[in-house]
Amino acid sequence: MSFFIVKDIYEKRVAEGVRIRVIAGQKMTMGFFYLEPGAIVPEHSHPHEQMGTVLKGSVLLKLGGEERIVEEGEGYHILPNETHSARGGEGPAKIIEVFSPPREDLQG
Amino acid sequence: MSFFIVKDIYEKRVAEGVRIRVIAGQKMTMGFFYLEPGAIVPEHSHPHEQMGTVLKGSVLLKLGGEERIVEEGEGYHILPNETHSARGGEGPAKIIEVFSPPREDLQG
Repeated sequence: MSFFIVKDIYEKRVAEGVRIRVIAGQKMTMGFFYLEPGAIVPEHSHPHEQMGTVLKGSVLLKLGGEERIVEEGEGYHILPNETHSARGGEGPAKIIEVFSPPREDLQG
Repeated sequence: MSFFIVKDIYEKRVAEGVRIRVIAGQKMTMGFFYLEPGAIVPEHSHPHEQMGTVLKGSVLLKLGGEERIVEEGEGYHILPNETHSARGGEGPAKIIEVFSPPREDLQG
């Protein structure tokens, strides 16, 4: 299918308080994340390049040696194998992230 | 740089009433589009895979044989070399699109 209503896509829980819906592609995965306040994505890395932007709320992102609160209207770029972690802000957060190559672990 | 304030990124005009800011990656390009009401992206195709979602407003998207108004909270997936065109809705529209491999023509 080529068109999607995001809220109708199957929602997968990937960590406590972290849920994702994805559009799965051949060369990339587009993920619509929902983070509950304070939800934690532990430090990790993967060979996939990653970019993201915050649509609602905020997230504390630790990226390489840098830590930054990323808010609505801001974005970030995570290189392949770059260690990163995240923590949801005071309210619920909505984030869009894209990965290339596809994150098969997040799809389905 | 790893963190971006989207409104501070250089804005490029890509068609009449269509402007874009991008985060340029190694394997993908993330584009923040602004479409004026009724702005037209003429029919075209490219070898890059493309995904998108509407953040504000709407866009009439023609994709393969299908035509659909895509609104906030909806998304789409365009296969490599799939012919597509777009027309901005009644109000200004904000769209996020991602491409892989990178769209060097949209960067800078």
